[in-house]
Order: sequence, then structure tokens, then C-alpha cells
Amino acid sequence: MLHPVILSGGSGTRLWPLSRQNQPKQFLSLIGDRSLFQETLLRASRLDGAQPPVTVCSDDHRFMVGEQLQAIGLDSGGIILEPVARNTAPAIALAAMHVAAGDPDATMLVMPADHLIEDEASFRTAVETALVEAGQGWLVAFGITPDYAETGYGYILRGDALGEGAFRIGRFVEKPDLATAERYVAEGTYAWNSGMFLFRAARYLEELERHAPDMLAAVRSAYESRESDLDFTRVPEAAFAASPNDSIDYAVMEKTDRAAVVPVSCGWSDIGSWSSLWAVAQRDDDGNLHEGDVISVDSSGSLVRASERRLVATIGVEDLVIVDTPDATLVARKDRVQDVKAVVDRLKQAGRQEHLFHRKVYRPWGSYDSIGVGPRFQVKRIVVKPGAALSLQKHAHRAEHWVVVSGIAEVTCDDRVFDLRENESTFIPLGSVHRLRNRGDVPVELIEVQSGGYLGEDDIVRLEDVYGRS
Amino acid sequence: MLHPVILSGGSGTRLWPLSRQNQPKQFLSLIGDRSLFQETLLRASRLDGAQPPVTVCSDDHRFMVGEQLQAIGLDSGGIILEPVARNTAPAIALAAMHVAAGDPDATMLVMPADHLIEDEASFRTAVETALVEAGQGWLVAFGITPDYAETGYGYILRGDALGEGAFRIGRFVEKPDLATAERYVAEGTYAWNSGMFLFRAARYLEELERHAPDMLAAVRSAYESRESDLDFTRVPEAAFAASPNDSIDYAVMEKTDRAAVVPVSCGWSDIGSWSSLWAVAQRDDDGNLHEGDVISVDSSGSLVRASERRLVATIGVEDLVIVDTPDATLVARKDRVQDVKAVVDRLKQAGRQEHLFHRKVYRPWGSYDSIGVGPRFQVKRIVVKPGAALSLQKHAHRAEHWVVVSGIAEVTCDDRVFDLRENESTFIPLGSVHRLRNRGDVPVELIEVQSGGYLGEDDIVRLEDVYGRS
Repeated sequence: MLHPVILSGGSGTRLWPLSRQNQPKQFLSLIGDRSLFQETLLRASRLDGAQPPVTVCSDDHRFMVGEQLQAIGLDSGGIILEPVARNTAPAIALAAMHVAAGDPDATMLVMPADHLIEDEASFRTAVETALVEAGQGWLVAFGITPDYAETGYGYILRGDALGEGAFRIGRFVEKPDLATAERYVAEGTYAWNSGMFLFRAARYLEELERHAPDMLAAVRSAYESRESDLDFTRVPEAAFAASPNDSIDYAVMEKTDRAAVVPVSCGWSDIGSWSSLWAVAQRDDDGNLHEGDVISVDSSGSLVRASERRLVATIGVEDLVIVDTPDATLVARKDRVQDVKAVVDRLKQAGRQEHLFHRKVYRPWGSYDSIGVGPRFQVKRIVVKPGAALSLQKHAHRAEHWVVVSGIAEVTCDDRVFDLRENESTFIPLGSVHRLRNRGDVPVELIEVQSGGYLGEDDIVRLEDVYGRS
Repeated sequence: MLHPVILSGGSGTRLWPLSRQNQPKQFLSLIGDRSLFQETLLRASRLDGAQPPVTVCSDDHRFMVGEQLQAIGLDSGGIILEPVARNTAPAIALAAMHVAAGDPDATMLVMPADHLIEDEASFRTAVETALVEAGQGWLVAFGITPDYAETGYGYILRGDALGEGAFRIGRFVEKPDLATAERYVAEGTYAWNSGMFLFRAARYLEELERHAPDMLAAVRSAYESRESDLDFTRVPEAAFAASPNDSIDYAVMEKTDRAAVVPVSCGWSDIGSWSSLWAVAQRDDDGNLHEGDVISVDSSGSLVRASERRLVATIGVEDLVIVDTPDATLVARKDRVQDVKAVVDRLKQAGRQEHLFHRKVYRPWGSYDSIGVGPRFQVKRIVVKPGAALSLQKHAHRAEHWVVVSGIAEVTCDDRVFDLRENESTFIPLGSVHRLRNRGDVPVELIEVQSGGYLGEDDIVRLEDVYGRS
């Protein structure tokens, strides 16, 4: 059976300021209403005979993954949490063990979560081609027929033909310089390395045994000590961290003598930068891509995104990328957007937060947004999802006022438990043990006014937590 | 005696989004901490023998004028409120009557509130020169020796010499085309019309009598029915509106045979656009002018302003103007900033607010800032100045929660009056008659959470108001 495996990795800096470390590219709605992760899940689920998709993600992103899965109403094949990042080869090994545990003959379709595919029919045909070769024991990479001489991707040279539409892999090549890339495109025998693969799970593990036995042993040891928690599968950090850090390309595909490539032209993009989003999106007659509240006067060739409740106006600009978020705005020349990493580096060096979090922060129970700060106070807009609860907690340095603006909140404050309805408020004195819970069917939204000499997120003692954070 | 008269006019669109209709250019801190209005007041007050300055401003701006005067601790010669705008000639006539009422021999130095003068010594010398001529009955315009062929200003051609540094006016010329402006600069006998004038108040009124008797009659009738209220002088709208709408240039200076010009080179600028602010300000080695939290990577020749709690990052941009405010951001080519009026026109046509008000709105009693909105609720950060009080009011459609975060608020809610201290809160039910007052010496800051089906500013019934708004 065909088991889609979605790899949700990536550090989330190339689309800063919209992407942040805790909200990388795959979770953003860049084109349309759904995220790239959701689009990838749906695309996989539409393949003939596809089983519920398995997701491998960072522990940090587990609630976002769970929520985005739930939002599209898709059955999940499980969410495997990487306690630390060890690149793609160990992540795929975890997934291989996971699917093989329930289906020894499982075939895996490995897909990064953050790619765009416009021509789904061509992609499906390529998957069918790859299934034939995987049935013969081949490990198949999907190679994208290049549209132009991209220097940001690795390339795969095809070798002898195996069957209709499939080839042995001649060799993998690193990101080339422009002249080399142009030659590759002209020769017609090179394809971009898409990071998508298809093979039988057992075959992948056999190849790992042969070419990376230490990795296999570490991952197996980790997987054998796994714990399950609802849809999540956790493995112990120490065991998994013992695995070498390596990509599937280096660890397996370049070493096995059964590597195949299926070339495909399916409108694929990894949206690796703001300029590549601009390039693949539908633009207006002036070549502009606008999102949100934008007024454009004599501007062209530009990507402009305004965030909620904010207007962005442009006059006479050309070929710019303007991305506005609640706490940061980027204005870059479109051909310089790769240097967004220089901005992120400066933020890191300065010990700042704007590369880590958005002003609005997602939590397992909902979200909070710091809408106002001043000396000795902070105002947050808090949303608690139906059925969710914050931890039972207390603070050493702050008191809190809560005003409910929608829904019904169940409030615990020391030994009292009571409901707070729309337009009702309460006060949580400094040091009180308190909890906020939503037992209802609609989100609870409330305004929290914090007051105290220190208002950092780390002033919290969690006494109980339904999400295992206490 | 020398009476400075500051004309605080202007519609405030050319420096949008920082300037708004209710907060035009002269009230902004564009260079340094003080506003152009405050700098103009202080410059005037440093002249030998200067009397407290008289300000003529729109009724809409009276509290901002009062507050900015108070902030620099300057004695005021009075604030005359224009009930409607009738251009400079009637405004100066009001001021002339005002100063002549207390000092029949008064000499007026008329200065727009929104100009920059870098070389104060040269300006003072020019004022001394002009005083000599005004003593002989001349009406003196200050002409700025042009640095370059500006097409955005009117010019004054000098005629015969009157005395040291003063000339009869040859003629006034409208904004020229570039070739004409270049010729004017080359000829050396033309100066920019600065809008600054010096003359005896009685002489101005005499010339009005001769050349614009209807205007004089209307303004006199208005002034004779004036009312004084603290530092403010109000005139009846109907009487003042009866005056023709005209500039001092057209109504008086071009008609009188006693018009003189004193040319001066004093680092004058009217900061009529973002590019002219960039041009006059101190820039860094890359030609950038940064204000606020800005990260600049390989960018040059640009003006970048970030608003509070927000970061602006630029990569590889050149010659841009980027102005970020809490509700709107402008990104414009520096040589296209005059087209900001096209953006403002679109805002007007769409019935929007971003050209009228900032998100933070100043009121006579302090300010409010709408920091969060959602369905059926709004969160405001409210500051009440020491000694100030909001009106006694009620709302038909909303209830309010107040949480005090600093200071001590006196709250009236129906028949109860009580103090609310830091970290205390109260609820104002829908329909209650309420008031907020600050009897203390420090500002009261509070968070207001409004709840209801309609949350517009116009849902207010004012029962009493210390600022005459009920």
C-alpha cells in the first residue's frame, strides 16, 4: 500500500518576516487559503490507494501540525516527533519503521511539506511510473525537468533507461554555478533534485543497514522506545540524537546501486524565497502580487503583503518585495531577497525575538497576541479553542485581569471555579493558582491585562498541564 | 514692540502617513524631539525684544497647539482660532487686530509654523534689517536666496535698493517651470517667497482697507464679536466666513506700493515632502536617514522611519522613502513622493480614515489608541492628563470595562463616584452615565475593553464637558 510521508522540516528564515522559527514556510498560507503543508497532505491523499499520511515534524511544531491536519478534516497516519533535527535520512527511517510496523510491504512516498506542485496530473503519472520501479526494488527520486538554469538546487543526471519514464541515476550533483546550470539545462539529461522519493519501506531500511548501519541502529533503538500520545509518536531524545546527521541523498541515494530517477514536469517549486513566490503566483497586469490592504500607485513587478488592520501604499516602485507583519516589515529589492538571512543573522546576534516568533503566538490551547505594552503592564488578546485549557499555573510577578469578549470561559482561581461570560471580567491576584478552560463549542476570546514589575513569558509555574508541559 | 505671529495652517497630506488631517506637518517631530511649530515658537522668542508669540490655528488643532506651547514652557501671546480656513490674508488680519488691541504700535513678524531654519543668526540679521524698513512703513517679505532651481515655490524679483539689505519688490512670480527657475537662480535677483513677513500691524490693516475692504470689514466684524476662553480667542464662524478667501500675497503684497523684500540665506526649507526632509537632514555614510528600529542591509539614499514597537528591515534598496506608522506604511521612490497626494485622494474617495487620523487620537483630555478590534469588541489604551476629565457621557450600544494600569482615576458611574487605582478595574454597564477624571499629578493610563454591537466613536451622548463639546 502507498503511504505518503510528509517531512515537515525547515528553519523558516527565507520567507522572513512572514516565516518565523516557530512558524516556518510550510505552515503559511502563501497562495490561497491553505498552507503548503495542507496542500501537500491533500495532494497525497488524492493519489490512488493512498493511506492516511504520516507526518514527521519537530516537537516544537506538533500542535500546529495537529491543528492544520484537523482543519482540513483528513485522517492522519500519525505524527512522528523528532526530538532533535538529524536531517532527512533518520527522519525517513523513523517513518519507514512506523509504516512497516503496520504494513510490512508498505511503499512510501516521501514529500517535503513546503513545496508547490501546480500540475497534479503530471505528478500522479510520475508517481505511477515510480510505483512500477519501486515494486522492482528501486529507490526512486523524482527529478524535476528544469525550466531555467537555477543555481539554488542540486541536480540529478539520468543514466540508462529502466522502463517507460524511469532511469538509473547517473549521479547527483551539488548546486552548480550559472554556466554549469545552463549547460545542464541545455543537455536535457539533468533534473532538479526535488527531495521527493518513492520506495518500499523495507528496501530503504535494507539500504540503510548496508550503507549507514550506525544510523539504522540509533533510529531503531529510538523507535523501539517510542511512546504514543493520541496521534503523536515520541522517541527518546538521547537515542535519536545518537544517529549521524545526514541527508537521504548522501546516506542512501548516492551509495545504493538501485537508485532511479523519474523525471517530471509538474509546475514544481520549493518557494525558497519571496522572489520565487512572486514568480509562481498569479500577478496583475502590472506584474504585482498584492495580498491584504494595498494601494499601489504606478508600481510594478512587486510583491506586496499587508498584515491585518494595516495598509501598505506604494508609489513608483519597481521590482520590490514588501512584506508587512504586526511587528516587522521587510522592504527588499526582489533580486536581493536571499539576503534576508543577513537580517535574521543580525536579529540572532542582537538576542532579539523577531526571527523566532510572531507577535501572535500559537499554543496547543489556542493563541495569544501582545497588542499593547507599557511600563509595568501588557495587554494580550487570548483565544482558547473549544475543549482546550491552559495549564493550572501561577505567576510570581504579575496579576491579571481577564475580560471575556466572546464565548464562556471556565475560570479557576485558587479554590473557586466559575464561568465567565461575554462582557464579564475577573481579577487573578499575584500568586493565585489559576486556570482558563473552554468547555464550550465556540472559541473563547478574552482580553488579558497583565500588571506587574516583570512580565516575561518565563514567569510561570505550571502545576498541571494537559499538554505535558508541567 | 515685535510680536511674532505663527500661522499654523496646512492640510497635512504631503508627509502622509506621518501627517494626518488632524495632525499636520507642523506638529510632528521630524528633526529632533521638538515639532516644527515648537521650533518656530522658540526661534521667534529668541529675537531681541520679542513679545510672547500669537498663534493663529484651526479650531480643530487648538488642544494640540495648547499642549505643544505648554510643553516648551513658553508664554503665549494668545491662540486665535479660525472657525473656517480663509487663507493667510484674513488670518493675518485677525492677528493684526489682536496685537494692535494691546499695542497700537505693534510690529508683526509673520511666520508659518511648518518651516525649518538652520542658520538662526542670518535669520536674526534679516529680521533686524526688516525692522528698519517696517519702521518706515514698508511691508517686508523675506526672500530666500535660492540654492537651486526649485519649481515648487513662488519667487520674488527684487527692484531698487531701499537700504542696506532691503529692496523694493519688483514683482511676485508664480511657481516657474524648470527652465525659468534656472534662469531666476542664474540672474541672482530672484528669491523664494518664504511666506514670512514683517510689518507694523496698523500698516497691514491700512493696506487691507485700501485693497481688500470687504475682507477687512468681515474680519473686523468677526473680531469685534470675539470670545475669550483661557488662552483661546474665538470669532463667530458666520462673520469670519464672510471674508474673501485670499493670500496675503494676492490681497496685499502685490497691490501695495510699499512692498519690500529682504533677501536672506538662512538654511530655510518648508519640508514640503519626504524627499525634502531627507535632503535637509543629517544622513549616515550611505546617505540613509533612519528613525526608530531600522535594520539596513546594503541600502542607500533612503529615508526609513519605523514606528514604535515595530522593526523595518531593508535589503539592497536605493533612493526609497519608507514611512511606517501603526496603521499604514508608505514605500515610495524618493523622486515620486509628491504623488503621496494620489494615495490620499484614493483614501478620501474610499471614505477611509487613514488620511484624517492616526490610530492614536489626541483629545483635549489626553489620547486614546485602538490597540485591538474584533467582532463586537474593541480594546483602547487611554491616557488622561493630570487635571483632565472626559465628558460626562453615556453610550447606547456598548458597555465598557476599565483596568487602570497607572495613576489614580476618579470614576463616576451613575450615582457612584470612586477612585480606581493601579491594578483595579470596573465595569460601566450599557446606558450608564459615566465619567473618567484625573485629579492627580501623573497621567492616568487605563485599558478599556468595549463590548457591544456597535462601537463607533459617534455612539456618545455628552451630558457635560469641560471643553465645551457637550
